[in-house]
Amino acid sequence: MTTYNAPVEEMMFLFNNLKDNKNYNEIEKFKEINSDLVKDILDQAAKINQEIVHPLAKIGDENPCIYENGIVRSPPGYKEAYTKFINDGWTSLSCDPKYGGQGMPKTVSTFFEEMLSSASLSFKLYSELSIGAYNCILHHADEKIKNKFLPKIVEGKWSGTMCLTESQCGTDLGLIKTKATKQEDGSFLLTGQKIFITSGDHDLTENIIHLVLAKIPGGPSGTKGISLFLVPKFNVNDDSTIGSRNGVNTLSIESKMGIKGSPTCVLNFDNAKGFLIGEENKGLSSMFTMMNLERIIVGIQGLGIAETAYQNSLAYAKERKQGKSNNNKDNQTDFIIKHADIRRSLLNMKSIIEGQRSLAFWLSQQVDVSLNHPEKKIRESADELVSLMTPVIKSFFTDMGTEITNEAIQVFGGYGYTKDQGIEQLYRDNRITPIYEGTNSVQAIDLVFRKVLNNKILSKFIKLIKDEIKDDNNKIELKRFSKILEQNLFLLLEFTKWLEDKNKNNKDDVSSACNDFLKVLGYISLGYSWFKTTKISLEKIKENKEFYEEKINTAKYFFDKIFPRIESHYQSAKSGSYSIMNAKFN
Amino acid sequence: MTTYNAPVEEMMFLFNNLKDNKNYNEIEKFKEINSDLVKDILDQAAKINQEIVHPLAKIGDENPCIYENGIVRSPPGYKEAYTKFINDGWTSLSCDPKYGGQGMPKTVSTFFEEMLSSASLSFKLYSELSIGAYNCILHHADEKIKNKFLPKIVEGKWSGTMCLTESQCGTDLGLIKTKATKQEDGSFLLTGQKIFITSGDHDLTENIIHLVLAKIPGGPSGTKGISLFLVPKFNVNDDSTIGSRNGVNTLSIESKMGIKGSPTCVLNFDNAKGFLIGEENKGLSSMFTMMNLERIIVGIQGLGIAETAYQNSLAYAKERKQGKSNNNKDNQTDFIIKHADIRRSLLNMKSIIEGQRSLAFWLSQQVDVSLNHPEKKIRESADELVSLMTPVIKSFFTDMGTEITNEAIQVFGGYGYTKDQGIEQLYRDNRITPIYEGTNSVQAIDLVFRKVLNNKILSKFIKLIKDEIKDDNNKIELKRFSKILEQNLFLLLEFTKWLEDKNKNNKDDVSSACNDFLKVLGYISLGYSWFKTTKISLEKIKENKEFYEEKINTAKYFFDKIFPRIESHYQSAKSGSYSIMNAKFN
Repeated sequence: MTTYNAPVEEMMFLFNNLKDNKNYNEIEKFKEINSDLVKDILDQAAKINQEIVHPLAKIGDENPCIYENGIVRSPPGYKEAYTKFINDGWTSLSCDPKYGGQGMPKTVSTFFEEMLSSASLSFKLYSELSIGAYNCILHHADEKIKNKFLPKIVEGKWSGTMCLTESQCGTDLGLIKTKATKQEDGSFLLTGQKIFITSGDHDLTENIIHLVLAKIPGGPSGTKGISLFLVPKFNVNDDSTIGSRNGVNTLSIESKMGIKGSPTCVLNFDNAKGFLIGEENKGLSSMFTMMNLERIIVGIQGLGIAETAYQNSLAYAKERKQGKSNNNKDNQTDFIIKHADIRRSLLNMKSIIEGQRSLAFWLSQQVDVSLNHPEKKIRESADELVSLMTPVIKSFFTDMGTEITNEAIQVFGGYGYTKDQGIEQLYRDNRITPIYEGTNSVQAIDLVFRKVLNNKILSKFIKLIKDEIKDDNNKIELKRFSKILEQNLFLLLEFTKWLEDKNKNNKDDVSSACNDFLKVLGYISLGYSWFKTTKISLEKIKENKEFYEEKINTAKYFFDKIFPRIESHYQSAKSGSYSIMNAKFN
Repeated sequence: MTTYNAPVEEMMFLFNNLKDNKNYNEIEKFKEINSDLVKDILDQAAKINQEIVHPLAKIGDENPCIYENGIVRSPPGYKEAYTKFINDGWTSLSCDPKYGGQGMPKTVSTFFEEMLSSASLSFKLYSELSIGAYNCILHHADEKIKNKFLPKIVEGKWSGTMCLTESQCGTDLGLIKTKATKQEDGSFLLTGQKIFITSGDHDLTENIIHLVLAKIPGGPSGTKGISLFLVPKFNVNDDSTIGSRNGVNTLSIESKMGIKGSPTCVLNFDNAKGFLIGEENKGLSSMFTMMNLERIIVGIQGLGIAETAYQNSLAYAKERKQGKSNNNKDNQTDFIIKHADIRRSLLNMKSIIEGQRSLAFWLSQQVDVSLNHPEKKIRESADELVSLMTPVIKSFFTDMGTEITNEAIQVFGGYGYTKDQGIEQLYRDNRITPIYEGTNSVQAIDLVFRKVLNNKILSKFIKLIKDEIKDDNNKIELKRFSKILEQNLFLLLEFTKWLEDKNKNNKDDVSSACNDFLKVLGYISLGYSWFKTTKISLEKIKENKEFYEEKINTAKYFFDKIFPRIESHYQSAKSGSYSIMNAKFN
């Protein structure tokens, strides 16, 4: 079985050194969230994730959820752990104190999301969509619904789901068939079937609050006629006590490659009572409040799983002896961490993971600004950067999760393929992340067509990087990094220009380049993060030589070894789509 | 569940058009293996693989092998299928007629290996190592042993294993602890434990013939003191009837991520009677006869699984409707095969798979020449090319298998992650192939240090490609392909030169570049295959326009979209190993 130690030192390094967003630092209510407090929270978080949550990963894999007589049972030990989890207040971490939350910023809660993903993705998913439901209700529901539902969700006694997918539509929600018929009292009755509903049913919470996309008969066709409804598993009385069972039933749960401790449900809505959230036919955009924050969290899942894969590979490499390294002196068998190729593999994981954590921390500040800054213009500006980077974090982090868990298996050799070590489970568990909340290709299309071609957010991001490079205070040692970053920024600009040109006369060229573009932007964003880390490390090197030297070394690896991938994506993309569209596939 | 249709047309295209090795065509006994005969064999092979073997894939995954009271039971239906399989003579396909084989060349049997891998890797593994054992005995054992064991192995009534790995050693066989003590009658008694033994025990055959690496006490230390022994599960009487049980017992079987229908055993040898194969202390090189051919077959496994993944993704893309493509005219939802990005994904799979099949066919001819040509010099020359390409086929094809099965999951979206469709099983089953028979990194090290740096085989291979490019008969349309191939050949030469330089003073630079080098050589080899295919296609285009145009189009995709990866591997590698060796990993 795997082990997990929360990287609190790494997280505190970011919080202490890279909380560099001026606008974030202006947010009044976060000024009291100081380093000591955060350290204390992260230590507590580490404790529960290492001791209580992590052991559930293997348990859930070996004892998947069970569906029997219409009831879904979670794996052994999940209920007890969940009770402790909510009693300790972890579901409320980032929620509004008005509803019982602790009001922590994303800068802090994102660290927690990572730890929980590292510890057990299956267990995490029981509460994850609750936060999505919380956000959706908070931003779009009326006061009555907020007061009725939010406190219980924040407390963790009720959980939430997102019900979008139907068997005929995942990506293309315009094809939704679930119907919502308005009743005299203003409520709706929903009928239809939803599939792939994460935590759609289970025995951990007293009630489950489904947020459901459905069509009101007579509305516009396609995505313009979709409305959003809150449909509880049990009806809720006005005093927030639980009433009768609503018309939502679980037909089955999926048998999956991984995240076996998390139930993925087929839900049947049969005249289920629901309440409209937001305006009629504007459901999709309300749902996207939930989806977008959720997508960032899915990216963090990829990061979290990769961290566990890395930690275990490193530990194994330090204890497994095999062969003699090039620098072997005593003619004794070496630990495999002495072998250059194994080191390369470990540094590959490390440099990507640490770069991602830093990028996620940067993005968390932007999210906090977008939600909390007093000035609307600043909020909007931050929100643009968030919308640009959301598909990147979602896709890039989860694809890297695939790469890293794959590499971890190789470090373990034959032992990586057996169940005992738990490494193969990370590979399987992570594999859902490039799929759900919109496949990675859909993210790439969203990035290119909606974020890059339709407006100028990208230039704003590029300017941030350029300012960083051109900073007059930069040390001379930064030159080797800034040079590489600058060259690749130039390539990014060229690539963007190519997309703009092609968008005018050959959309297929653009469509088939989206994945490559997302990768390029992903690598460059990580390069930006590594550049900032290196800068700080050079400044502070005397304070903790060992720590900061290792940072600079890892940055070198990233710039030398990972950055060359960028060029190949660009070259491949700009060859266009001729052969792609010309293929017959007979 | 997946479907599978054996790509007989593709295989016949290769057999009819790319059986271009002059030396192969000189081998007398293969002259009668004509197109009609091969077509007939492939049709029969397609039938059994599609109808009998393929359904076993899912059955084996859902009903893994069982270990109970010291006995290993194969999944339901495997025994009946295996009986038909051997009755139809499939285990004897490439074996010597002297021992009951059909004497087919590798050009034919490799096609069969691919089909069987596509149909069910778990089922394939029961007979695969038998062929390994057959080769090892054929080349290294004395006549008495050959006559006693080979006919039953060829017939498929007895199966074989390779027993190398022990818990403390996989890659580094010098650490082997299993002991073999000589008896007065010239036989040996073996004692020790072997792990990860594929088909180490099961109920499909009457007997299991283990080929075991062990040390004779008093011999040299390390790999120079390893000998090879034949140890049957049941002792065999002189008339080849089965005698008493030998001292080999199964302690357990592994619980694994995939190939669950194939038992991976821990075997205990307790004074088990064995017979020396080849000379004392020369066991490793004898075992490598078996290993090398086996490594090629593992590469073919990656190809076979990728083919099934591709076929099913293509079928799904043709039947799943979602969204509207750029070229949508009727405002109706499109089949996803209309979307540029899905097409890109499919063409990625197709171009790699067809290039690999062609390369494997080329290599099969070389193997046949190396084993069968009357002239020693020609045999040796072919053998050199085989030894160069063995690690490439093993690693590159299996890594591509990972890429392709991963991509197939994405095409299926959420359905790719559930068990119903069977796609996720391909991803899991394939994942063993980069590990067993020597991890892919070990292959890369073998390629660079033993094959490229220690001699000049690579120049021989490069010359083959250059001759192909420079052929005076080449059509003008080939220019776009030859130009790209030539540029990248230049890069390969530069890379090789860099390795040679670094090998003199910085072996860590070389070690950490091996994986990148193997990839570069892999892509270039596929480019060589695609170049030849394009050449034939241009010549024959009038005979079957649709078929050959698609070939040329796929080649274009490969050269435009895949080849740019080469540069990035080179750039990454030649940045050296400074940061890699400098990392502290604290």
